[in-house]
Amino acid sequence: MNKEAIYHRPDSEYCYPLDGSTLRIVLRTARGERLKEVGLLWNNKYDFCERRQFARLKKMWSAPLYDYYIADLKSDDVRFAYIFLLTLSDGREYYFSEDGVTEEYDFKHGYYTFFQYPFINGADVAAPVPWAEEAIVYQIFPDRFRRGDMQKDDSYITQAWGELPKPKCYTGGDLKGILEKLGEIADMGFNTLYLTPVFRSPSNHKYNIADYLSVDPMFGTNDDLKALIAAAHARGMRIVMDAVFNHCDESNAMFADVKARGRESAYCDWFIIRGDFPARTPSLAPSSGVPVLAPSSGASVLAPSSGGGQGGGSHTLCNYEIFADCPYMPKWNTSSPKVREYLLNVALAYLSWGIDGLRLDVADEVSHTFWRELRRAVKEKYPEALLIGEVWHENRMYLRGDEFDGVMNYKLQKVFLDFFAYGRIGAGEAAARIDRITASNMRQSNIMMLNFLDNHDTPRFLRACGEDKEKLKTALSALYFCTGMPCVFYGTELPLTGDGDPDCRRTYDWSKDPEFKGYLTALSRMRRELPRGELRAREEDGALVLVRESETERVTAYFGGKKKGKIVREQI
Amino acid sequence: MNKEAIYHRPDSEYCYPLDGSTLRIVLRTARGERLKEVGLLWNNKYDFCERRQFARLKKMWSAPLYDYYIADLKSDDVRFAYIFLLTLSDGREYYFSEDGVTEEYDFKHGYYTFFQYPFINGADVAAPVPWAEEAIVYQIFPDRFRRGDMQKDDSYITQAWGELPKPKCYTGGDLKGILEKLGEIADMGFNTLYLTPVFRSPSNHKYNIADYLSVDPMFGTNDDLKALIAAAHARGMRIVMDAVFNHCDESNAMFADVKARGRESAYCDWFIIRGDFPARTPSLAPSSGVPVLAPSSGASVLAPSSGGGQGGGSHTLCNYEIFADCPYMPKWNTSSPKVREYLLNVALAYLSWGIDGLRLDVADEVSHTFWRELRRAVKEKYPEALLIGEVWHENRMYLRGDEFDGVMNYKLQKVFLDFFAYGRIGAGEAAARIDRITASNMRQSNIMMLNFLDNHDTPRFLRACGEDKEKLKTALSALYFCTGMPCVFYGTELPLTGDGDPDCRRTYDWSKDPEFKGYLTALSRMRRELPRGELRAREEDGALVLVRESETERVTAYFGGKKKGKIVREQI
Repeated sequence: MNKEAIYHRPDSEYCYPLDGSTLRIVLRTARGERLKEVGLLWNNKYDFCERRQFARLKKMWSAPLYDYYIADLKSDDVRFAYIFLLTLSDGREYYFSEDGVTEEYDFKHGYYTFFQYPFINGADVAAPVPWAEEAIVYQIFPDRFRRGDMQKDDSYITQAWGELPKPKCYTGGDLKGILEKLGEIADMGFNTLYLTPVFRSPSNHKYNIADYLSVDPMFGTNDDLKALIAAAHARGMRIVMDAVFNHCDESNAMFADVKARGRESAYCDWFIIRGDFPARTPSLAPSSGVPVLAPSSGASVLAPSSGGGQGGGSHTLCNYEIFADCPYMPKWNTSSPKVREYLLNVALAYLSWGIDGLRLDVADEVSHTFWRELRRAVKEKYPEALLIGEVWHENRMYLRGDEFDGVMNYKLQKVFLDFFAYGRIGAGEAAARIDRITASNMRQSNIMMLNFLDNHDTPRFLRACGEDKEKLKTALSALYFCTGMPCVFYGTELPLTGDGDPDCRRTYDWSKDPEFKGYLTALSRMRRELPRGELRAREEDGALVLVRESETERVTAYFGGKKKGKIVREQI
Repeated sequence: MNKEAIYHRPDSEYCYPLDGSTLRIVLRTARGERLKEVGLLWNNKYDFCERRQFARLKKMWSAPLYDYYIADLKSDDVRFAYIFLLTLSDGREYYFSEDGVTEEYDFKHGYYTFFQYPFINGADVAAPVPWAEEAIVYQIFPDRFRRGDMQKDDSYITQAWGELPKPKCYTGGDLKGILEKLGEIADMGFNTLYLTPVFRSPSNHKYNIADYLSVDPMFGTNDDLKALIAAAHARGMRIVMDAVFNHCDESNAMFADVKARGRESAYCDWFIIRGDFPARTPSLAPSSGVPVLAPSSGASVLAPSSGGGQGGGSHTLCNYEIFADCPYMPKWNTSSPKVREYLLNVALAYLSWGIDGLRLDVADEVSHTFWRELRRAVKEKYPEALLIGEVWHENRMYLRGDEFDGVMNYKLQKVFLDFFAYGRIGAGEAAARIDRITASNMRQSNIMMLNFLDNHDTPRFLRACGEDKEKLKTALSALYFCTGMPCVFYGTELPLTGDGDPDCRRTYDWSKDPEFKGYLTALSRMRRELPRGELRAREEDGALVLVRESETERVTAYFGGKKKGKIVREQI
């Protein structure tokens, strides 16, 4: 047995309450380990040394290197102690406890070495936002979706609708335009909108906010936003909105005050500045470097690589902390309680207008301290508000139930790209990676992941597929099949194509009849009929096979291979 | 290479800031893996895809199954991206990223798969309590240490000083008695007192509190406590006190109100009750079961096993949640915000009296939600207050910087018992386990661990040694050598012996000259001169060897073997 591969960690995604009386236990072993049985000896922690119950774990997921076994323990006494008992196919037995993998186990002194979940306190149970499991999300980049207000001052518009976007162009889309098309969006089965930022900002993407509480006149008014929310709610739709708390625009009043008054400004410690005044480094102003796909939102196209020098990041550009390589995006100092209070009140204001959830931009660069305070304040007042973090990487530290509900699932997107679009990996590898992703988080978090094929920060998936529409359709069907909220970028139904930002942000062509409208509608119907159980992936005859299974029903879908497109529904 | 053994987890004890500009990176491999080099390719996350710096990791700890390599990265740009590059002794190279162990790595798309610590936000840096690294702690169980007040109503005393303790006996020790002996305690090098509970409670251990804010008259008055704090502070000593927030005594006013008024009581949801009134199960009242050592404080002797039945824990005893098997200790419902506010104010009151730290009883059964709120409120007002949790098991979920500073180090005690006292394990195993413990937590947490050989919940270490005083002395010297605060149970200097509770709580014999006084004094001196660097353990010629090393100095201590008792100090 590969003892070093055995892994378990209490009070983590390997051991967590599903509800007030059910504890999920997960054990990791090397993939393909020859195990006859994986058992659990468990009891309430005060009786464990004297007597134990037995539960058998079931093999659930197979990642590239590991297998994952699970058991759900139900008990009135919610003080759990447990150790694992692994039986190899040759009959040898090993215990696995906090003392490691051992051939013997001293039950008498078990109180030193058993694993435990000492008490399920209700306050610690990560509760799924009830509407999230039903959510099918349509993401809109407002400047490019539709212009509804024909009366507005449109002197800001720099480019005609339908032309290929340039980094800094404005094309005139607005909130009224979205409102006009709510019905068509809903007709395709979408019940949730996700809007990228709409507040005052000197950019088309508006991820650099000058005024957090006023809708940008390009997009409309606060009343237009409220009308959109009301109209959506009237249709039973939800609205999730971007909230940008990592950084603001340099024209934001607080930063402007610091620029004017330096250390004398009351807002000086609202930012992180070396020196008395924020200043750019003149000799190193943004060069003509090639735009790169930066691992974050909105501003990516505006982030030039820092040229052919030594690297060294933002500090060569200015003397204050910024987002990416953008001196015009000063970073909020969320280590300051005042900043946290200010931004938290912004979040509460959005929710007070009826916004149903927040997509938290560049969430990983903001302090955990802030996110914990934000969650606490938000969920106290709006328990059904959904909090989604933009985290491209390891995300478990945000998904323990005290920060976010879910994150943008870039890891799943990468599998979809590598398998469906580029064909870089085979079905076996794709299945193993999907299982790895599923096994990496609590069930509750998986339900609240925001899954997508593309968005405003990536090339259109169709482009990644070399414009092969069949590949896009297959990937979309997998997206809808997976646990987690499918999120479709506006125009996918046409379908729109395009390279990375800004090309992925093309204007919607309202003259066309959406080619995929029927297909997306059918996928929504398919999704609503899926069992709610765990997602499992496997390879079969070269095809990627995904399975959703509840206690009574199993649905199996084939992506590729001889059974391509087939969906099998069984009672079990 | 054992790929399955490779482990790393960003934003955990494997990757955390030591301060505002230093990131510690830890990598785990299989023990004894033949690696020529473990390297790190890193840069600021926005430049990583184009260029990287290289850092070499150093092998630091060797646990039973794993080796741990570390590197401390210093950077002005605190947005870290990194992957590992492992070179085997045969020259083969592997990358290790969020994509797993691979032979190739696609740097161009690294923003999907690099590891990252996206930004060191000051608010997230776990800051060591400055006095903790100097602390040498003396633990007192007040009823048994010394009686100082000869005027008090002593009708409660049931047993003469010097007789062997019975579970429910009272012997008359009090706060005035402690005050009288502060000088003698300080003379042995102790600079911190840890007092088990002193508030109103119908027991000698007072872990079941009836009134959180009044010192029990058996022990004195609130003024006596304040006088003790003042006297300690005048000597430069600190006082840490038990805070019991998991449960209270059934005579506590809130629980009494619920007993009287059931669902009508305003305090009904302050406890967790099934039914309208809290009630014991008459037919299943505590049987004559054999007392067992329960994995928690104070009440252990009073917790009968639940007889020869099916187990089922507390629920067979009463219809409300309790501590262990003790219906007289109803559990607080820390899922209720009101309870959290109440208990949090108790903690703030203790600190307002000058208490320097809290030892949080049965911390693992209380909600994380409460501990996070407590830490936030406490540290805002008393940044130097020390928070130590009673956690016998896996503790990393409490030691991320948002709950406790340290925990009671039962894992280290177990090694000391198994190696020094019982001789159940050899020096190699002991060294590997010590390294496993050290590698399990952040450096900051290790500094603030409360290390001990014994306490009020365990047999005296001397008894575990079969009364062999030399063994006790050797273990004490190891205790003082380790990272973490040594905590010595009152009377160890005599030395007192005794079996588990109540026998470990014998009265102090003031007629004796403390045999180990000089030894403990010398150990304190030795400890003060140790370098502050990491602890490392190894086996050498059958001896356990412990090393403390800073950048300039190394001190090596030999426990057993030919060099037994030897301490070697080197400049490096």
